[in-house]
Amino acid sequence: MGRWEPNARERLERAALELFLQRGYESTTAAEIAERAGLAKSTFFRHFADKREVLFHGQGALNTTFADAVIGAPDSATPIEAIGAVLDAAATIFGPERHELARARQDVIDGHDDLRERELLKLAALTGAITDALRARGVPDPTATIAAEFGLLAFRNAFVRWADPANEREFGAIAHQELDTLRAATAALADGSVRLGDKDL
Amino acid sequence: MGRWEPNARERLERAALELFLQRGYESTTAAEIAERAGLAKSTFFRHFADKREVLFHGQGALNTTFADAVIGAPDSATPIEAIGAVLDAAATIFGPERHELARARQDVIDGHDDLRERELLKLAALTGAITDALRARGVPDPTATIAAEFGLLAFRNAFVRWADPANEREFGAIAHQELDTLRAATAALADGSVRLGDKDL
Repeated sequence: MGRWEPNARERLERAALELFLQRGYESTTAAEIAERAGLAKSTFFRHFADKREVLFHGQGALNTTFADAVIGAPDSATPIEAIGAVLDAAATIFGPERHELARARQDVIDGHDDLRERELLKLAALTGAITDALRARGVPDPTATIAAEFGLLAFRNAFVRWADPANEREFGAIAHQELDTLRAATAALADGSVRLGDKDL
Repeated sequence: MGRWEPNARERLERAALELFLQRGYESTTAAEIAERAGLAKSTFFRHFADKREVLFHGQGALNTTFADAVIGAPDSATPIEAIGAVLDAAATIFGPERHELARARQDVIDGHDDLRERELLKLAALTGAITDALRARGVPDPTATIAAEFGLLAFRNAFVRWADPANEREFGAIAHQELDTLRAATAALADGSVRLGDKDL
């Protein structure tokens, strides 16, 4: 009872993702995950409430990390620069050692409508965490909301490119490229320089 | 069997929302909804697959309405003007006769995590429908994606204000005010004129 298992959490996560992809998410049980990880079923339930939580346990930490990045940004920062700080913080989480796990997790989620709904709720919570932090730093609404939506868009776009099996670039470099692209697109949106009839398709 | 019931769909919808709010969503059955509407249970199932669909049956039509507004916008329109056309189209749906129903629906959804997840999926699908329509009109990415996210933000903000029990203004007027506010906030975001240290809280 309560025996220390080195890296139990990560071993359970890896085992779960392997089984979800091999046998399907529905037909995998907590007991099977523990067995694959070489751990007791009780160890699984010390770390996760259920198998769904294996996919979403990182949410609280991610919310805090994103909010802290905004709270810690200098007074001279624009909201977009604060989003840049959020992406730098994300880069410390999505390192090369997470690449394979993150890819596997996304494949499992993409294959299940209910998990995709849960993932959207997670992304909405992240947007809310950034919005609240920007408001706490005195950024008025709706600028705070738009900047946060903008940040999540950069994060999601960067994540998709980073998690691609063929990708070898670092998350931070990809994310800042996405941020620059979004900044240019936002400027074009604001100055009205793009028209629907500009291109013949 | 197959008997014509005038306004059956709307009667079922009203009855369902009444019961969801009075007795709770979980404890309301399709049979009870039909009974409250003065209709046969079989009539319920001719209109809705289950009680959850009562809340989400409008999604397909809304996707089409939003996409058609973009497709029908003039070549001279900017993406933000196309979003204005989307909001005008939304205003034809969210008329005064829908006010009470829309308010009740939102109350039911806000009270249930799984319905909120489903609602986020619906909003994501609406964003996707607008994005695809903008792309079809030649607007490049990520401008198309940002404009669509921007449009959904205007739509959601406008909806919350419109559905407020105390509100008596029309959806279209509220939505265009939201669009103007968001346009100004986007300009401020793009030109970097807002700084985190601007306000003391």
